Amino acid sequence: MKYELYYWDGIQGRGEFVRLALEAAGADYVDVTRKKGGEAKMMKLMQSGATPSFAPPFLKAGKLLIGQTANILLYLGDRHGLAPKTEAGRLWAHQLQLTVSDFVVEIHDVHHPVGSGLYYEDQKPEAKRRAGGFIEQRVPKFLGYFERVAKANKAGKGRHMVGAKLSHVDTSLFQVVEGLRYAFPNAMRAAEKKAPRVVAVHDAVAALPRMRAYLESPRRIPFNEMGIFRHYPELDSK
Amino acid sequence: MKYELYYWDGIQGRGEFVRLALEAAGADYVDVTRKKGGEAKMMKLMQSGATPSFAPPFLKAGKLLIGQTANILLYLGDRHGLAPKTEAGRLWAHQLQLTVSDFVVEIHDVHHPVGSGLYYEDQKPEAKRRAGGFIEQRVPKFLGYFERVAKANKAGKGRHMVGAKLSHVDTSLFQVVEGLRYAFPNAMRAAEKKAPRVVAVHDAVAALPRMRAYLESPRRIPFNEMGIFRHYPELDSK
Repeated sequence: MKYELYYWDGIQGRGEFVRLALEAAGADYVDVTRKKGGEAKMMKLMQSGATPSFAPPFLKAGKLLIGQTANILLYLGDRHGLAPKTEAGRLWAHQLQLTVSDFVVEIHDVHHPVGSGLYYEDQKPEAKRRAGGFIEQRVPKFLGYFERVAKANKAGKGRHMVGAKLSHVDTSLFQVVEGLRYAFPNAMRAAEKKAPRVVAVHDAVAALPRMRAYLESPRRIPFNEMGIFRHYPELDSK
Repeated sequence: MKYELYYWDGIQGRGEFVRLALEAAGADYVDVTRKKGGEAKMMKLMQSGATPSFAPPFLKAGKLLIGQTANILLYLGDRHGLAPKTEAGRLWAHQLQLTVSDFVVEIHDVHHPVGSGLYYEDQKPEAKRRAGGFIEQRVPKFLGYFERVAKANKAGKGRHMVGAKLSHVDTSLFQVVEGLRYAFPNAMRAAEKKAPRVVAVHDAVAALPRMRAYLESPRRIPFNEMGIFRHYPELDSK
């Protein structure tokens, strides 16, 4: 089955968490909006059908049309061995993925604290204020949590967050580390010192042959200032 | 099996979405932090065990300890018939629940746009600014989406969001409507006119005998200005 991924063209955004899982699984997929007429097709699917999405990304998998990033990863995890098979293991992996989602919302809202309907340029003072608490409190709290989880997962041998195998949690955490390094290089340099196990999971993902091939391909859209992870030097620590 | 629900005492918060599902199912549970020593027990569980949560709520179900509101509801939906049994139906209900979660984050952040580590009193001008876009754009967008979904679900006969039966999506949407009425009574009066089907689903939940009994009981904590839905008149429309 060839999946169809629907997400805004030109940014990694939330779609990237799905792309990374598809790439890690070696799944066959098409990134629809990067083809001619793709965005019109996406907008149409958001307004019709039995299971329309509130927003991209969503994934067409045969007859299924699945929305919400973590929900798509729940589905792909089962289909491609990117999550444990037991009920307890699946729920735990999904719980961690939802915690990544929460972190991603906060990362995005640093540059958009007043509202997603406004430009960053319209909320720079508020963003600067929000960035302070984000760097001092939220980044250490989230990374500290994932560090504890990685430490407790002995089966992962320093490479995996859940059990002994690669999961969608690993690929999403990889993306969060990459994104934070891009957006807040100074703050992240300091934060990583206290989260060596999170960095090790990131490195293990980056070293996978499929990931290496993907990251060097044109399928990997570069970070930019339209996505979730934006590098605005004035928001980073000194 | 008697469930143990862990959530901050004194507020409905995210825990309420779990409580409503438990009550709708007639499930046996204890609200741990409302008992003596409960909060200490909760804090301990967040720092130990194989599946610690980043934050409450979490649910102890036999040997399982499940965190993240939508993940708990995914589990309870399967156990108590509060979600369809087919894969497509389960994923769809979960997708809608995750969209409710996204809406709840935005509702919370209206009074905390700069950061959760600060008091509302420290971010009142920013909150006022955020409330404008929230009322004018986000509330109509989210309610409009749920209205379309309710309309498309013919099997629900105007009572249910997913299929022909009560689901965790109905109970969560009930809570969102209740909360928005409390927090933004003026804005909500206008918004409801364009979302009659959402209101009908709310009313159908409110009329369930188990829900009526719960809402009139002391188990239902009143809305207040420490939770997600806060009534600050200066943030409402005139």
